[in-house]
Amino acid sequence: MTQTDPRAGVGAVLRDLRERLPEHVLVTDPAQRETYACDGLAAYRVRPALVVLVESADQVAEVVRACACHDVPFVARGSGTGLSGGALPHADGVLVVTSRLRTLHEVRPEDQRAVVDPGVVNLAVSRAAEPGGYYFAPDPSSQQICSIGGNVAENSGGAHCLKYGFTAGHVLSLEVVTPDGAQVTLGTEAPDAPGYDLLGAFVGSEGTLGVATRATLRLTRLPEDVRTCLAGFGGTDEAGAATSAIIAAGIVPAAIEIMDALAVEAAEAAVSCGYPEGAGAVLVVELDGPAVEVEQELDRVRRLCAEHGAVEFRTAADAAERAEIWKGRKSAFAAVGRISPDYIVQDGVVPRTSLPEVLREMGRISAERGVRVANVFHAGDGNLHPLVLFDAAQEGATERAEEVSGMILDLCVAHGGSITGEHGVGADKARYMPRMFEPADLDTMQLLRCAFDPAGLANPGKIYPTPRMCGERPRVVHAADEPSVDGAEVF
Amino acid sequence: MTQTDPRAGVGAVLRDLRERLPEHVLVTDPAQRETYACDGLAAYRVRPALVVLVESADQVAEVVRACACHDVPFVARGSGTGLSGGALPHADGVLVVTSRLRTLHEVRPEDQRAVVDPGVVNLAVSRAAEPGGYYFAPDPSSQQICSIGGNVAENSGGAHCLKYGFTAGHVLSLEVVTPDGAQVTLGTEAPDAPGYDLLGAFVGSEGTLGVATRATLRLTRLPEDVRTCLAGFGGTDEAGAATSAIIAAGIVPAAIEIMDALAVEAAEAAVSCGYPEGAGAVLVVELDGPAVEVEQELDRVRRLCAEHGAVEFRTAADAAERAEIWKGRKSAFAAVGRISPDYIVQDGVVPRTSLPEVLREMGRISAERGVRVANVFHAGDGNLHPLVLFDAAQEGATERAEEVSGMILDLCVAHGGSITGEHGVGADKARYMPRMFEPADLDTMQLLRCAFDPAGLANPGKIYPTPRMCGERPRVVHAADEPSVDGAEVF
Repeated sequence: MTQTDPRAGVGAVLRDLRERLPEHVLVTDPAQRETYACDGLAAYRVRPALVVLVESADQVAEVVRACACHDVPFVARGSGTGLSGGALPHADGVLVVTSRLRTLHEVRPEDQRAVVDPGVVNLAVSRAAEPGGYYFAPDPSSQQICSIGGNVAENSGGAHCLKYGFTAGHVLSLEVVTPDGAQVTLGTEAPDAPGYDLLGAFVGSEGTLGVATRATLRLTRLPEDVRTCLAGFGGTDEAGAATSAIIAAGIVPAAIEIMDALAVEAAEAAVSCGYPEGAGAVLVVELDGPAVEVEQELDRVRRLCAEHGAVEFRTAADAAERAEIWKGRKSAFAAVGRISPDYIVQDGVVPRTSLPEVLREMGRISAERGVRVANVFHAGDGNLHPLVLFDAAQEGATERAEEVSGMILDLCVAHGGSITGEHGVGADKARYMPRMFEPADLDTMQLLRCAFDPAGLANPGKIYPTPRMCGERPRVVHAADEPSVDGAEVF
Repeated sequence: MTQTDPRAGVGAVLRDLRERLPEHVLVTDPAQRETYACDGLAAYRVRPALVVLVESADQVAEVVRACACHDVPFVARGSGTGLSGGALPHADGVLVVTSRLRTLHEVRPEDQRAVVDPGVVNLAVSRAAEPGGYYFAPDPSSQQICSIGGNVAENSGGAHCLKYGFTAGHVLSLEVVTPDGAQVTLGTEAPDAPGYDLLGAFVGSEGTLGVATRATLRLTRLPEDVRTCLAGFGGTDEAGAATSAIIAAGIVPAAIEIMDALAVEAAEAAVSCGYPEGAGAVLVVELDGPAVEVEQELDRVRRLCAEHGAVEFRTAADAAERAEIWKGRKSAFAAVGRISPDYIVQDGVVPRTSLPEVLREMGRISAERGVRVANVFHAGDGNLHPLVLFDAAQEGATERAEEVSGMILDLCVAHGGSITGEHGVGADKARYMPRMFEPADLDTMQLLRCAFDPAGLANPGKIYPTPRMCGERPRVVHAADEPSVDGAEVF
């Protein structure tokens, strides 16, 4: 292929789109484009060359076809709340924003289905299903603003995914625009659809296999009863051991969360949640299901916590008290701002049984490097969210924090875990993929990417560390640090 | 490609393998090869050109590499119990039999994992995990003999998959030999592994993406209590309505099965299971979980059955009575031999809420065509197993039965269901795929197959109706035929 000015490609796409789409969906003004330069991971900023605020699935297909025709990369974006830079734009590419696609086409609690647009907000699905006694189970912390399309792209989880599973388990079929602009359906409403589970491969593919334009979701019945309790422990060792004991007893709580002393301190400073004073760790357990079962399980959780040294145990008597318990946990990330000017939210996984050891090793690293690490995490499935605290104004502090953050991921991989639990790989963790996968495994993943996207135009630079040639159509994927359309766009 | 004698290829493979594998794993004798000519779907028989009884993952890789080198097709086979002809050999190809790979490498109930060879029998995993209080949840009827490798290939289900899900939900990672002979790992033990869910796509790919050589499985905790009950109804309408009412009440039984009058008659004739006399339909419901929950749910199931016209309701008091209830259900397929010399076991799915209507329409088809249809099915997830009865000795009877069998699948698809619930597509249902999927959807599936297997050697002729040349681009991007703005950029 001859090397051409990358700006020419976007110019050609824009000319094509002006013939096919209404002008008001095309955003060309640099200042307006700048507002889309990052997602929830603000450390990375790239101003897209063109933004299209699509208003239909057909418009998505038009944009993708124009990009395919002119060899221009495209990135899809929902609400932009992702924490791994999965929706980081491409400087010479088109950003397809789906947030105007907000129609709830069908909500059918009687057969546990909802059919929605990709821009529909996660919580809006649950609100619509609630009168029928159902909800949409995946609950990322950002559920008040994050979109179903983004949940699909990142296979989002949340505190309650221990019991109910990630987004992949709650999507039955998707209408998708593939990177060549074809509009296809993946999956069916029936269980165990014949053929390959392309739906499963698409969910969590972080926008590299195409753009979802409609989703059929599985709704979950609201539980008869929900009980939330909180236990204070001397430290994370005891809280971790109590977690393992609860799971080993055959109880699968809806959520089981641990906050360490530093996280508790931060939450207390921010929202005065009244957690046990001086506790080295707080365990929050939420149980749901039939009332008789929940009541019995609550007794067993109380007993198991006591056996593992709980210094205090409280049960929320009503919804208000339940909200009080969650307030501290949910505010923890933001609250850390009270005790540190800057912080990195890390996301890793270890086998649950390795939790105490990994937490101890993390403590050693923290002490050795002089970098404070607060821990707030989904203990039930070993999904850690260490908050690495630093002050960017201090020389070398950012680098030290990043080093510690990377060491934590190494620790996770060394214990048989993963470099991400629920935030995805995106732009941020592509470099860590070779720590977890052998070259042959990564090559095998590229087979799928190249099959769907031989030209490498769908969200290039995400997930995989090295761009790869696809068959006979060699094409170097533009890295985010290449010269950009109007220059000086890369930060 | 030049046309050569297909047998020449197998000869070359055999010469290669004789240099690399011990002679005793190579089966060349025609009579011995004949014993592998079919799997559980005996209507199709093809004698393979060569059989290899592999004894290690490395041997699997040797066989696959030799096949790739000489352009020879290969088919993997576990215990050969599949019901869709997924392990039907290729006449000019190699059959890779994994039944000698039977090592249980690790059984670790403490973190709910087992690592096993593909030839390990399904029930052997549960037996090994039982002392630790765990089991392997997917339970095909053939679980006493079917292999984990076969379960993975077909994404097998069973009566208890309503509550616990299909095989795909119970496999954490696989070691796989891809069609080019590479040995790779798909998936990880961590939840939500980064990268594409190739593991999910591989499970259920019916041997078309490679051969699994080792599986890491998720073990499920044995429930504290199990209760099984049986209700007799006037007909399948009432039994179906009771099923919907149970699910709508938020109860997820471990299993919920319906047998119609003809199936009950057959079971009674075969094993004298003592089902309610003259019942138009029998509903079997199994509940499991914490004892207090099960007890309460059992009361509600009893009440709901009564409200929907149950003429009789029995609860098994102990394990022996539970076995008695299941005896009739489990023997139903074989029992049909008592009332008909020949029968086709069909496998289709409909949305649960469409069950009564589909059963009525099936009754109409049966009456119109003069072909008896017995129904035994997993009602909870709408997975029908109609048994189409015929006498092959009567002229035209086989054809009429096959026609009715196909009409039943059309009925399933017309109601938004699927042409297979748990038996797979295999050789048998490839022709039905276009009734369920649009050409663009099938083309998209072929992208994955061609990416893994460009030469089309892995289990050819299965799943997809028309083999596609892998070089062929299935679609043309629409914008490409527009006059280009900048000639150099259009392909």
